[in-house]
Amino acid sequence: MVTLREVAAAAGVSIKTASNVVNGISRVSPALRERVERAVAELDYRPNVAARNLRRGRTGLVALGVPSLRNPYFAELADLIVEAAERQGLTVLVDSTRGSRSRERLVLDGFGMQLVDGLILCPHGLSNEDLVDRRDRTPLVLLGERDIAAGDNISIDSYEVAFTATRHLLDGGRRRIGVVGFEASVSSDDMARRRIAGYRAALAEAGLEYDAGLVRMMGRGHRADDAGEAAQQLLSERADLDALFCFNDEFALGVMRRLVAAGVKIPDDAAVIGIDDVDAGRLFSPSLSTVSPDKLMIAERAIAMLLNRIGGDDAAPRREMAGFRLIARESTGG
Amino acid sequence: MVTLREVAAAAGVSIKTASNVVNGISRVSPALRERVERAVAELDYRPNVAARNLRRGRTGLVALGVPSLRNPYFAELADLIVEAAERQGLTVLVDSTRGSRSRERLVLDGFGMQLVDGLILCPHGLSNEDLVDRRDRTPLVLLGERDIAAGDNISIDSYEVAFTATRHLLDGGRRRIGVVGFEASVSSDDMARRRIAGYRAALAEAGLEYDAGLVRMMGRGHRADDAGEAAQQLLSERADLDALFCFNDEFALGVMRRLVAAGVKIPDDAAVIGIDDVDAGRLFSPSLSTVSPDKLMIAERAIAMLLNRIGGDDAAPRREMAGFRLIARESTGG
Repeated sequence: MVTLREVAAAAGVSIKTASNVVNGISRVSPALRERVERAVAELDYRPNVAARNLRRGRTGLVALGVPSLRNPYFAELADLIVEAAERQGLTVLVDSTRGSRSRERLVLDGFGMQLVDGLILCPHGLSNEDLVDRRDRTPLVLLGERDIAAGDNISIDSYEVAFTATRHLLDGGRRRIGVVGFEASVSSDDMARRRIAGYRAALAEAGLEYDAGLVRMMGRGHRADDAGEAAQQLLSERADLDALFCFNDEFALGVMRRLVAAGVKIPDDAAVIGIDDVDAGRLFSPSLSTVSPDKLMIAERAIAMLLNRIGGDDAAPRREMAGFRLIARESTGG
Repeated sequence: MVTLREVAAAAGVSIKTASNVVNGISRVSPALRERVERAVAELDYRPNVAARNLRRGRTGLVALGVPSLRNPYFAELADLIVEAAERQGLTVLVDSTRGSRSRERLVLDGFGMQLVDGLILCPHGLSNEDLVDRRDRTPLVLLGERDIAAGDNISIDSYEVAFTATRHLLDGGRRRIGVVGFEASVSSDDMARRRIAGYRAALAEAGLEYDAGLVRMMGRGHRADDAGEAAQQLLSERADLDALFCFNDEFALGVMRRLVAAGVKIPDDAAVIGIDDVDAGRLFSPSLSTVSPDKLMIAERAIAMLLNRIGGDDAAPRREMAGFRLIARESTGG
């Protein structure tokens, strides 16, 4: 690695002068500037951008922490955030946290170094206290629903999403609607509670009673196969079940797999709907009905909010809601 | 942000002494050390790890560049690499490059700063010349097949993989086997050529002639839907087609979607096989037969090779092959 000292020596100037030229500081005579620039070119000197950015307090990097890339929702969202950032001249570095508290803390601390200009985090393991207590002042945007003001926040409205999914099933004539969901990962994680509330509200609107026996909530970290097993069990206990509302498409795909293998006809015997609109759901046979969050809006607003904070805005944390739409496909009768 | 200067002032010592304590340098008396450590605790001083690592020449960070996170193969592989790295005390930052040459260059340059201790890159846009010409000496591991020595390399053997997939179809009695593949992204990218060679060799072994009309090669960046369209077109031109070998599972899922929608029975009318073993393939109905690369081995060897280089090994670049296995599921008759 060529150093600034070597550039200065080759140009016959002081290190200070070489530094001024390399860093674009203007108080250098044209003659000296030319000598330094020639030395830079000849030696193929490349400034230590990290060190320079550290001085300026910027790196052009943003860290994105998501619980898993194996869940296609987060993989697709990460790709959209990478692209949205690129349009704004930022580079996103993605970390897959497995929803672990310590790993999420690492992201929240900017990997323990002054590495990134901003953070985007979808916390599963961190409590509200963890988030509020953070000392680091790196701008932060949170993805997902949290009732706190630890940073700007963008999410979809889980209550409305669940209400929409459930009402779609009810509109299709379904009356015994099971739920395959996940529990809160930490006590302050309200997404699961809100989804159940939305489901109940849709049932109530249709004059149906809530039956806790129709709801299977699994721990976080459970995957498609676990969801499939839960659904099959539920069906074996409740033969009158005519629909399943799954908390995400990954679960829904696992549920469909198991039901089809067990000879259950979808949607004739049981309709299935998920949330997320992942690519695979569209390709499945039957194709999966889902509630599609506006992932592009989430990606673009997360980057815009972050840029605003990086630019110095220190107003109180803001909360934004992203849109969503129902996509009715074959698994609910289209 | 508390500075070392404030720590020194609070402890009543020189900045040099405070620095020595914080950096674990031993030539400080126990009494002074205790005063500094108390000040560190009281002020919650956190050293600038980036700056310290820059001095030591290490950051504990590794960059991973993959063409897309939306392709579940890369998303799953990225998650495994993140976990393999974590077991070795390294943090992986993932960049989604879209296979763009300039974006891959950015990764290859370590984002233009002394940010990472090592690089893992799956290049789609970079030519062999780009890779060989790089000036940066950051340890590099390449994923995928390239006939160059620009860094350590781990991949599966595309020829063998394609041979295995094709022979599986032949063993099942298929005789007219179409291919839905992708072209090389750059002239030096040999994966596509090798897969076709493996396909041809399996046909030849079975006494069958190669028919270029059965092969549809698409540009990189094409997705599942494009593959489905290509397959349907191929079937409409060649009614005697009885199987399709797809270059990846994403394509195969798109192909199955289209064929099922067109009333083609899988596997009775046409068998389908892919490569990659992504999660969704297992869940599909019919479940997708595939050749499964040993992703865990790829992840672990990539990290091990990188650590070896970071540790100072400067032997000639090494090439390793990861294992793979055939997974026969419903789409080829199990």
